[in-house]
This record gives sequence, structure tokens and C-alpha cells, in this order.
Amino acid sequence: MELGVYSFGSREISATTGQPVSSAQAMRDMLEGIKLAEQVGLDYFGVGEHHKPGMPASSPATMIAAAAAVTERIRLGSSIVVLGGDDPVRVFQQFATADAISNGRVEITAGRGAAVEPFTLFGHDLQDYDELFAEKFDLLDQLNRNEVITWRGTFRPSLHDAEIVPRPEQARIPLWVATGGNPTSILRAARHRARLFLSVFGSRPDAFARMADLYRQASAQSGTPAVDTRIGVASVGLISHRPDAVDYWGSFFTGSTGEANGSPIPQHVYDQQVLPGGGFFVGNPEQIAERIVDAHTHIGHDRQIFGSDFGGLPHRDFLRNIELLGTEVKPLVDRELGVSE
Amino acid sequence: MELGVYSFGSREISATTGQPVSSAQAMRDMLEGIKLAEQVGLDYFGVGEHHKPGMPASSPATMIAAAAAVTERIRLGSSIVVLGGDDPVRVFQQFATADAISNGRVEITAGRGAAVEPFTLFGHDLQDYDELFAEKFDLLDQLNRNEVITWRGTFRPSLHDAEIVPRPEQARIPLWVATGGNPTSILRAARHRARLFLSVFGSRPDAFARMADLYRQASAQSGTPAVDTRIGVASVGLISHRPDAVDYWGSFFTGSTGEANGSPIPQHVYDQQVLPGGGFFVGNPEQIAERIVDAHTHIGHDRQIFGSDFGGLPHRDFLRNIELLGTEVKPLVDRELGVSE
Repeated sequence: MELGVYSFGSREISATTGQPVSSAQAMRDMLEGIKLAEQVGLDYFGVGEHHKPGMPASSPATMIAAAAAVTERIRLGSSIVVLGGDDPVRVFQQFATADAISNGRVEITAGRGAAVEPFTLFGHDLQDYDELFAEKFDLLDQLNRNEVITWRGTFRPSLHDAEIVPRPEQARIPLWVATGGNPTSILRAARHRARLFLSVFGSRPDAFARMADLYRQASAQSGTPAVDTRIGVASVGLISHRPDAVDYWGSFFTGSTGEANGSPIPQHVYDQQVLPGGGFFVGNPEQIAERIVDAHTHIGHDRQIFGSDFGGLPHRDFLRNIELLGTEVKPLVDRELGVSE
Repeated sequence: MELGVYSFGSREISATTGQPVSSAQAMRDMLEGIKLAEQVGLDYFGVGEHHKPGMPASSPATMIAAAAAVTERIRLGSSIVVLGGDDPVRVFQQFATADAISNGRVEITAGRGAAVEPFTLFGHDLQDYDELFAEKFDLLDQLNRNEVITWRGTFRPSLHDAEIVPRPEQARIPLWVATGGNPTSILRAARHRARLFLSVFGSRPDAFARMADLYRQASAQSGTPAVDTRIGVASVGLISHRPDAVDYWGSFFTGSTGEANGSPIPQHVYDQQVLPGGGFFVGNPEQIAERIVDAHTHIGHDRQIFGSDFGGLPHRDFLRNIELLGTEVKPLVDRELGVSE
């Protein structure tokens, strides 16, 4: 199984000033994390899109292009791009450029989005939340499949025999639909023969077994080869031998310390979620490996990625978490489940 | 004076197939050119925006971010971004991300654009050509100056106490207004205390002396410090010791060979333009250096950049042109005009 990391860009709390580092420094910190992820043998790094000061990665393709230029093997993608708030033509051009630079290692994971900022910022009506995504994902899929395109829709101008450049290095950029488990999104992924990324934030992995089944059945009915029906899982998780790092990280989610967390989780819920079978993957490498293997028995997924740099987590803990995932967790998971091809 | 290169992405004609290389290969070729430009000591590389198969660089910031990750000293920017067809918020986010990665070496040169594709493709009315640019450049300028912004305009949704992230590494990203010499654009640059990039495609440099004067006078009246009133010049030019490369390149502009050129120049005009005092900088390093110094006596500009990879120019000639500009032309110009700081 493939293992990887995702990040929305994190502003470490400076030990000297007590303030978050600059958002520009956060971008360089993320790039350092991506390089390390490749060095320790991880399979994927996903760059998120948010538009708030605490999560300053607002342009996934820009960061991915930078990472593409300084890596050689790791696959790079969005986790996620909020497609409803953007123009699929621009998104495709940016990711195709990054794919060219990477020599064919770029993917796009698109979702409807979990935050309102992109809709406010780019002037879209949240009432059109699902229609925006449906139309734009359809266009993105068509752009990916066709060098010349004629298209008409509701939310952007028509295209007439348009040849969108550059073309990616890959014949097609792998497309994933991200969802927290919404059946509409799952069936949409299957209908487009796209891959499926399940975001397991705060949910038990076993709850996703039925979603995975729904996707696989619908994909089979749409005639998609089994080899193309890939499932990814995105979880929050921190791998560490150091209890203080784990405590610091956990306190962000329960709202007791760290940068302001608008939606804290009650302590007793958090305590449940970090146990085996829960949605928060927190612990030492052996514990994390065991939980990944356990989740895999329920979901049968092909890739799992972890987000850890929340709440001003010290950058060294973010890096150490990546290192442990690659050097200690991955060999344990490979031994149980076989090496990812 | 600073010297540099610009490119719209060029698809070399493959010697084996007789066909242009892929647009993805063109992106990698450009990145190789940028790395070489840094190695040979050039000051700037500008990435253009076009939306046609023969010029496949459609997303300047994406390419600039990749280049930022693999260079350390050269300044990187757009030449140009067609701002009227884009959203200044997205453009600022992308360039700020690239600026962070570059540790503060990114610039934005924005123009109204010389091609209709961006307007067709992104659904803007060419009747709004100037208004689109005026409003969007104003917003870009404000985003660049303010961490939190409230803004209202005609062509994009309002912003209310919006904190656009990430912030760039530089306190402000240097902004340039590009123009072929239109007084409206020149006065706009001065009013915004922006820099001015004159595109001298097919015009005599001495014709630009008055434009430079207009900009300097208007800038002085707006209270801009003289040190900030910088002028750049973008020319087409090929530096080569090889007559066959020069002939090949010239034949593109006159429409006699190479990839289809929609607006060929009559041979007698081309022959005039390549002479000293003309707008096409073609020749060996000594000739080019002499012409740059001569143009400088008229314009007094701070930076000159050259575009050469047109018409399927062989990639090795593009690279050789960059190498000669850095290793032979630049020392000659420095000797005459002083070393750029």
C-alpha cells in the first residue's frame, strides 16, 4: 500500500517570539517536508488549498510545480483543490505544467470543499455547492481526455474547438474525487471512472467500508477496470516517539492550546478517536502501522496519507513525523500488506 | 544594466520526426533555459503567457515556482501575465507562493495582452480591454500593499476584510506595467508607482525615448523616488555566431519557414529591423552589446530582455543564445555602462 503525507501549510509557533512564522516561511517549510518525504521513500505528498492565515497554502499547483522541480520519484498532487471555486481550464493548465516538470508524477484530487472561504473569496453561491463541483469536474475530466474541446455549461464561458496547453506529460493526469463519504460524490467518482479519496477526519475507518464497496460496485457497473478503481484515505495523524509532541498536537484538536481552532473536539471524543479503530492516527510507528493494516482490512484501500502540521506544530516534529512514516511505518506495513508497486 | 531572457515556451522541431516536440517537453526545455540563465550570470528570466499550441506557457506563476526551487540568485517574473483575463487574487496567491519559494526573487509584469485568446477562453469582452486591466491592476497593487483588504469593483466579487495568503517573502512583489508604448499604460504605471516594461517588438528603440521620458516625468509628479522608476525593455533577439541559426530564426518572422507565423513581416522590413537602430537584436555578441549600449543612450533603461525561441528554433540554439548573452554580451555591456547592482 502507498503511504504519504498531506499539508495545508503550517505556520510553526516560533519558540523565540511565541508568534507564528511568516506564511512565506510556511511555504518553504512545506517544500522541505516534500523533499524529505521523497528521501524517506514515501509515495505521495498532497498539497491542500485553504484561504486562511493559519493554513496559507492557497495554490496547490504552484507548490506542486516547485516540488516537482526538486524531486524525482514521489507522486505529487492536490489534497484537495476546491474545484467549485476555481476555473477548470486554469487548474488544468497549472497541473499540466507541473506534470510536465515532474516528468509525469502529478495527480489532481478535487473536492467540493469543506470551508466557505473559497466561495466567498471567488464569488460563488454556496447554494450551487454541488452543481458547481459537478459541472467543473466534468469539464476537468474532458480537458484531461481531449486535446481539443468544445463544451458548454452554466458556470464558465463556453469553449469552441479550444486546444488547451500545455498538455501533461502523462497521457492523462490521474483524477481523484475527494469526499467525506457523501454517496453523490462516490457515485460521481465511479461515473467519471475517477479514483476515490476518502477523508476520514474524526470518523472510524470501519464506517468507510460501505463507502468503498459502493464505489467499487458502481465502478464495476460503469465498466471501469478493477486496476483503475483506486481508493485513498486521508487521515489526521502524528507519528512520534515523543509524548510531548503528541500532547501538543492533541491539544490543538481539543482547543486547549495552540493556534485558535474554530471547531475543537471534546476531550472524551478525542480520547476515543486516538484509540485503535478511531479516526485519529496518533502514536509510535508500531501503533500506527498496526492501525493502518487494521484499517486496510475494512477499506481495502490503495493509499493512506496523513496530515499532522496543525496548530503550530513545531516544524521539527512535522519533519520527524514524515521521517518515521517512511523509515519505520512503511516497512512494517509493507511486510504485512506487500510492497506497493 | 540588467540583462535577461523571456520565453513563451517553444516547441523545437524535432530533427528526427520533423514535428514539434510535446508541449510538456517545451516546459522542461524552458526550465533548462532558466537554470542556464542563472549559471551564466543573467539577471532575469521572464515567463510569458499565451494559450496557443506553438507557445504553450499558459501559467507563468507555475513555471516560475518550479524555477524558484532550482535557482538561487536570478530574478524571475512574468513576461507578461495577461491580467485582464485572470483574477488578481489568484494571481497574487500564485506569485506570492513562488516568491516565498524563491526567498524573495519574484516579480510580476502585467499587461493588457496582445492576443485575443485569453479573452475568448476566459469569457471577457474585448470591449472592456482597458477597463479590465485598469481595475485588475489596481486590485493587484492593493493586494500587494495590504495584508487585509476591503475592495469593490466591476469585474470580480467584492472583498471584505479579506486576508489573502500566503504573503510574499518580499515586503512587496515588484510590479511592472508592460506596454508597447501606449500613453495610457505609461501614465497608469506612474500613477501606481509601478515600474515600466516597454516591448520593442519591431520598433526602433529611439522611438521609446519619449515614452521613457513621459514615464519619468509622470513618476516624478506622483512623488515616486527616482530609484523606483525603473524601465525595462523586451526585444526579440538572437545572439549567435552561426549564420544558419540566424537565418532559420529570421525566416520565421518573414513567414518563409518554420511553424506557421500568423503575422509575417515583409523581408525588407525585417532586413531594416535587424540593422543597428532597429528593433530586432540579431547578431554576434559584439554586435548585440553595441546595440544594447546604443539603445541605452536613447532610453536609459535599467533592464533589457530578449526572446529568441520562436518558430521551432532548435533548443540548442536557444541555450547557446542564453549562454552568449551571459558570458559574452553581459561583460561587454557592463564594461560600457557599469555593472548592475
